[in-house]
Parts: sequence; C-alpha cells; structure tokens
Amino acid sequence: MRTNMTQQGILIVLSGPSGAGKGTICRELLRSNPNLQYSISATTRQPRAGEANGINYWFLSKHEFESMAEQNDLLEWAEVYGNYYGTPRRYVAEQLESGKDVVLEIDIQGAMRVKEKFPEGVYIYIIPPSSDELAERINKRGTDSPDSIKKRLGCASEELSCVYNYHYLVVNDKIASAVRNIEAIIAAEKCKVQRNHNLIENFFRHSCVRKEDL
Amino acid sequence: MRTNMTQQGILIVLSGPSGAGKGTICRELLRSNPNLQYSISATTRQPRAGEANGINYWFLSKHEFESMAEQNDLLEWAEVYGNYYGTPRRYVAEQLESGKDVVLEIDIQGAMRVKEKFPEGVYIYIIPPSSDELAERINKRGTDSPDSIKKRLGCASEELSCVYNYHYLVVNDKIASAVRNIEAIIAAEKCKVQRNHNLIENFFRHSCVRKEDL
Repeated sequence: MRTNMTQQGILIVLSGPSGAGKGTICRELLRSNPNLQYSISATTRQPRAGEANGINYWFLSKHEFESMAEQNDLLEWAEVYGNYYGTPRRYVAEQLESGKDVVLEIDIQGAMRVKEKFPEGVYIYIIPPSSDELAERINKRGTDSPDSIKKRLGCASEELSCVYNYHYLVVNDKIASAVRNIEAIIAAEKCKVQRNHNLIENFFRHSCVRKEDL
Repeated sequence: MRTNMTQQGILIVLSGPSGAGKGTICRELLRSNPNLQYSISATTRQPRAGEANGINYWFLSKHEFESMAEQNDLLEWAEVYGNYYGTPRRYVAEQLESGKDVVLEIDIQGAMRVKEKFPEGVYIYIIPPSSDELAERINKRGTDSPDSIKKRLGCASEELSCVYNYHYLVVNDKIASAVRNIEAIIAAEKCKVQRNHNLIENFFRHSCVRKEDL
C-alpha cells in the first residue's frame, strides 16, 4: 500500500471585513498555487468588458439563477442592487471530488451561509494589522463616499464578532506573509487525522495482516 | 493596537510507532527552526559519554525523580529497565509562557498520558510511507533481535489504533517533506482563532471605539 492515493480536496473560504485585503490575497494565493481552483460565482448581472463566462463568473439569466437556487444548487446566494450573486454547489463539489482544493473569496454573511451547508470547509478570517489600517485602506480606495466609509467601518465592527465562527485568523500585515500562512493552513489541514481516514485504514489493515504473518 | 504581542507558545508532540523515523524528523525540525525548544526529559539513568545535564537530559537521583512525580511535576513518566524517564512540566510551562514553542518527541503511550494533562498541545502522529517500510526500517537498524522486531511490529499494529487520538498525521516518506508539513502545522496552529483571543479582543474593542466616534 502506498500513501499517494487521491485525497478529497478542501474548500478554503477566505473572508473578512471589507478593506481587509482578501481580494488581493486571494489573487496572489491563486497565482502562486496554480493547483488551487477558484470558485467561480454565478451572477445575473451583465458581463463587463473583458469578462468571460466560466472564468470571471458564470453569467446566468434570472430564470436560470432562480431555478438553481430552488434546486438547492447554490451554497449561498444574495441579491445586490437588483442582481443575484451565488456560489454554485456542483462546480465546487466536482473539483473537491477530483482532489482539487477550491478557494472561495466571499463576504462574512456569505461565508456564514456556506458554512451551514458545508461545515467541513476551512474558514479563514482575514483582518488588516489594525483597525486604523482598515479605515485607512477603505479611505485610500477613493471609491467610497464618506457615508459609505462610515457604513463600512460600522459593518467591520459588527462583522468582527463573527470571527469565532471561523477556524483561522490571518493578519494581513504583508500580502506575502498572509499568503504563506494560508498555504501553511492548507498543508496542515491535509495532515488532519480526520482527513486521512482511508490512508490510516489501509495502513492499519496492512499492518494487521503483517502481524498475523509473524 | 498592533498585532505583534506575545502569543503563548505551543506544545508540539511528535509521536508514532517505533521505526517511523520520529527521532530523525525531530532533530531536523529543531536544526532548521532554532526558535523551537526541545523538551528535555528527566531520567534517573547514568549520563553516557558526551551527555550533559540540561542538554540531553535532566539527570536526577531516584529520590529527586520520585518527588517530582509525587508533586505532579511530570507530564508523564515511565520506568524502562529499572530507570525512570519523564517530562518535567515546569520547564515546558515556562517555555510556553515566554512564547516559545516546545517540541516533545515521545512514544505513543507517553504521548497519550501527556494529552490527558495537556490537551491544548498539538499531537502529531508520524508514520512511514507503508508498513513494509516500517518493517524494513526496523530491520535495517540492525540493533534489534528478530524477537524484538516481531514485538515492535506487533506493537506498531496496536499503536496505530491510537492514531485517532492525535490531531495530525504526517507521512515520513521524505524527511524534508515531513519536516515541511510539521512546520506548516505549527504555522497553521498559530493562526487558529482560539489561539488568538487577545488579538481579536483588542482589534474588536478598538473597532467599537472607532464606531462610536463616527
């Protein structure tokens, strides 16, 4: 018996308050780990210039989206400014089954809904090094109005209280070190005893046979 | 608030059947991570040539050892061929409190006794890539008599059933990759939400103040 049999992949959920930098971390993680699969969201919004179906999003009609939701084929979904966004369950499941790890970048509300349906995922909460930094990052974007900044910071405070529903906390002080920590988390999760049932059972069975032979 | 406050160290217990290579892995792990502390065992056996007190072992008299055991100052202890061996609790506790991680290499029986007293440690079970390999490694040592080999393999089979009491399983196919996995486990454990209580509470408190200010 060898130990290189295919292990089920892991769903890695990257989440945290807006302004924590989870998008940048996610892109860098995927860039430096081409074996990781990005969980492509489904949406009913129109594709923007340069966006392709099955790469940036699965672009669906409202009817298609709603029937997926009805068939429980979305791990979570939400309506934002009149458009639907959601995480297709089947795509994720197929990737995991083939032994690939899937990365899902999602806000806190979405992550908590995914966790209800998929508790065996690995839930990582990303925060900036300090809440001052958080305010600064949101300001620096320049895309947010003062009102929206206040709302985002207020949200961040409420969202922080969700952190205890996550498994890991990664401080985004430097992108590279945050990515290294997430890589370590993935490697460690693959070593978890409960994820290595088959390997252990095979080793054990083989050992017992050997013992009878003695 | 910055996030670089001292985090309590982690007790890392490396264990597994004889012949799994845990001694070699432990030495290599300590060599390449000088920040890790080795948990020095106490023993009543005589020092061998080249062995120094407080480096290889704490060499104690039988009386000293027994009073440590009585005062519950040993995380575990055992008698082997008339000598006592044990893990002093205070040394480990002091290192952890100062923020250092401590590595304890120990057999399965010992690890399970330590876990009773110290469940917050990280318990890593090391196995060779296959049970054939295990037999081969024990044979190759050349130090074991055929009877002792049979006994060791029998033991290995029984000891495997303890694996579900551990948190992680590391396959020792190559020393370097086994060490890398253990390093990943340590890094991941440091990111665990429940090990970052202080950091979260500080961040949260600070965020709330900010919110009031808005």
